[in-house]
Amino acid sequence: MSVAQEFEAANAKYAASFTKGDLQLPPQRKVAVVACMDARLDPARALGLEEGDAHVIRNAGGRVHDALRSIIISQQLLGTREIVIVHHVSIPVLANVASAKTFQTNCGMLTFTDDVIRGKIQQDLHQNADHIAFLPFGDLRQSVRDDIKLLKDSPLVLDVPVTGYVYEVENGRIVKIE
Amino acid sequence: MSVAQEFEAANAKYAASFTKGDLQLPPQRKVAVVACMDARLDPARALGLEEGDAHVIRNAGGRVHDALRSIIISQQLLGTREIVIVHHVSIPVLANVASAKTFQTNCGMLTFTDDVIRGKIQQDLHQNADHIAFLPFGDLRQSVRDDIKLLKDSPLVLDVPVTGYVYEVENGRIVKIE
Repeated sequence: MSVAQEFEAANAKYAASFTKGDLQLPPQRKVAVVACMDARLDPARALGLEEGDAHVIRNAGGRVHDALRSIIISQQLLGTREIVIVHHVSIPVLANVASAKTFQTNCGMLTFTDDVIRGKIQQDLHQNADHIAFLPFGDLRQSVRDDIKLLKDSPLVLDVPVTGYVYEVENGRIVKIE
Repeated sequence: MSVAQEFEAANAKYAASFTKGDLQLPPQRKVAVVACMDARLDPARALGLEEGDAHVIRNAGGRVHDALRSIIISQQLLGTREIVIVHHVSIPVLANVASAKTFQTNCGMLTFTDDVIRGKIQQDLHQNADHIAFLPFGDLRQSVRDDIKLLKDSPLVLDVPVTGYVYEVENGRIVKIE
């Protein structure tokens, strides 16, 4: 059975007890969340979101550059007036402690460079990917600060409150980055 | 209280009962989900995802073009081998029935054109946004088919199973698009 078929079975149960058919299009809490696509992070559960509350934009790393189209639509057409960024990390990385466990638990975006992934694509797919910036990062806290600054500096993004966090995959906590 | 502060309070409860600290970086179900950012859609609840299961990539419309960087990283570095696309819709739109309710419930991406949002940005922010393709669509089923084709045609994306759905916001169901 494909995962898609498993999703269909799970969805049948979800729909059978669904009670939220009257939700409106604009997010009720007027917030857009930009978060990493990481499988271990569930933004709804980790942040207390119910259906209808917030736009949730997710990509590799939770990078703002790759979310600008969506953020502009969220603000211009659907009225969100706050942005929350959630990157994620393992505690050993935050503490600058390298360990075997770190490789398993940290953000995938800390594990490679543009050159590494472009080389892999060249070797495995025989394709050139030099035109894609994969947006890896070397410092998790700094990536959050960089993305807050990118939002603040963008003339296409409204001047709204922006708060950035890293999510600790070992304990489920979000830690605010100043 | 800002929404970010509300998130911090909700997260404290989540972390207090967190038991999933040993999850590995690669998604256990080896699938990447590409879904709309719409507030009413919770991919985890609607598809039966637990923390650790799947990459979840979300943007305005759930468009593949805007997700390619993340999909490539997901496949090349983290081993996913299946893709599921979830756009969403209201039932009246699927049935080609226009109504006042339709405007409230359909996908925001059906409500505008590039010219409309660029005009609004010019008027409100005094900025030119002609360089951004906002990827709206006129036909929800066709947008899913277009995105499946984009994946199948991309030389940078592996030849893996791709399944596309629209999510019906009124009843929580996913409907497969052939």
